[in-house]
Amino acid sequence: MKLYGYWRSSAAYRVRIALNLKQLTAEHISVHLVNNGGEQHSEVYHQLNPSDLVPTFIDNNGSGEINLSQSLAIMEYLDEKHPQQPLLPRNIEQRAIVRSMAQAIACEIHPLDNLRVLQYLVNEMGVSEADKMRWYHHWIHLGFAALEQQLSQYSGRFCFGDTPSLADICLIPQVYNAKRFNLELAAYPNIVRIWDECNKLTAFADAAPEQQYDAT
Amino acid sequence: MKLYGYWRSSAAYRVRIALNLKQLTAEHISVHLVNNGGEQHSEVYHQLNPSDLVPTFIDNNGSGEINLSQSLAIMEYLDEKHPQQPLLPRNIEQRAIVRSMAQAIACEIHPLDNLRVLQYLVNEMGVSEADKMRWYHHWIHLGFAALEQQLSQYSGRFCFGDTPSLADICLIPQVYNAKRFNLELAAYPNIVRIWDECNKLTAFADAAPEQQYDAT
Repeated sequence: MKLYGYWRSSAAYRVRIALNLKQLTAEHISVHLVNNGGEQHSEVYHQLNPSDLVPTFIDNNGSGEINLSQSLAIMEYLDEKHPQQPLLPRNIEQRAIVRSMAQAIACEIHPLDNLRVLQYLVNEMGVSEADKMRWYHHWIHLGFAALEQQLSQYSGRFCFGDTPSLADICLIPQVYNAKRFNLELAAYPNIVRIWDECNKLTAFADAAPEQQYDAT
Repeated sequence: MKLYGYWRSSAAYRVRIALNLKQLTAEHISVHLVNNGGEQHSEVYHQLNPSDLVPTFIDNNGSGEINLSQSLAIMEYLDEKHPQQPLLPRNIEQRAIVRSMAQAIACEIHPLDNLRVLQYLVNEMGVSEADKMRWYHHWIHLGFAALEQQLSQYSGRFCFGDTPSLADICLIPQVYNAKRFNLELAAYPNIVRIWDECNKLTAFADAAPEQQYDAT
């Protein structure tokens, strides 16, 4: 298995946590999202992943190579291929709740606040630094406020009950990102508590950006 | 089953197609996204769905009511609960490819171009109509260009082989939306072809916005 990622990419961070929870080892290949005009736009990487986004995940099952993009698809693949330490509950209703929490982050917060969008706002639309940060905080606050309500209903030690799931895996990189941009988290006691709980686990701690070989 | 949606919401449109493919009937409840300051922000709807987004899906399984947001989570729930006319292939690798295509739309295109984001650009950031449309087209073109390459590898009659899947269900509402905003699709022959194929099926045609009772 190979994972093309970047230490600060939230989506790559998610897949690193999933691999660690399942005690799977992948070769990590760094794609620097800033240097050299963004290595994700290089001809070589574009061949691998025409969306110019990280992560890209490659697996070789003997029957051939599979090349996957999209972190949620990669993690569900890992979960189906390697059922140990499941990332989703078995019960259909519970799986749906966990997926909806994960997607509330992956579809409603992260896409609006990732690097390429912030770059477009500044470089193509002439948005000021202050307005860029207002935008950034706006979407996280909206998303976290809604998620906090779901957590008050469903969380235990983790987002859904007492087992880490796809929801925690999406939440932790988003909180890491929010902290990096000095977002005030006091209004989200469940999110803060789950952040602390998750980071007690080596699977999460070892996946943190600063622990990666390409961190600078 | 109840589906709170809106005729023009891409995410509700997806769930309507999934229900139709599975020949399931739900009560459709309209949440007008524009009138009355946006009914999705009303106190009553906010109680149902704290993210103020459509759709919200309610099912009652006898053991209690389940309230789900996030269209992809709703559709995977339907697929697990009602396995007829599966929305994903059985093979793990193939499922992963279909999910990655669906998410390339649901996580990389739609979140950037949906109503609340376009409203924020104009109302909160003072972006001009022309720049708003440039933004809109930019993200669809980026996403469609990448998807077109995946389709040239995996598509048959539909996005993945000859069976409609979660990927087609996400694609069709996005193309509908693109056409509404006069996006030039000539560079995406596979996407245009699949649009035509899908709309030959009543499951897709009947889910189209103009066919809904709340269309105006």
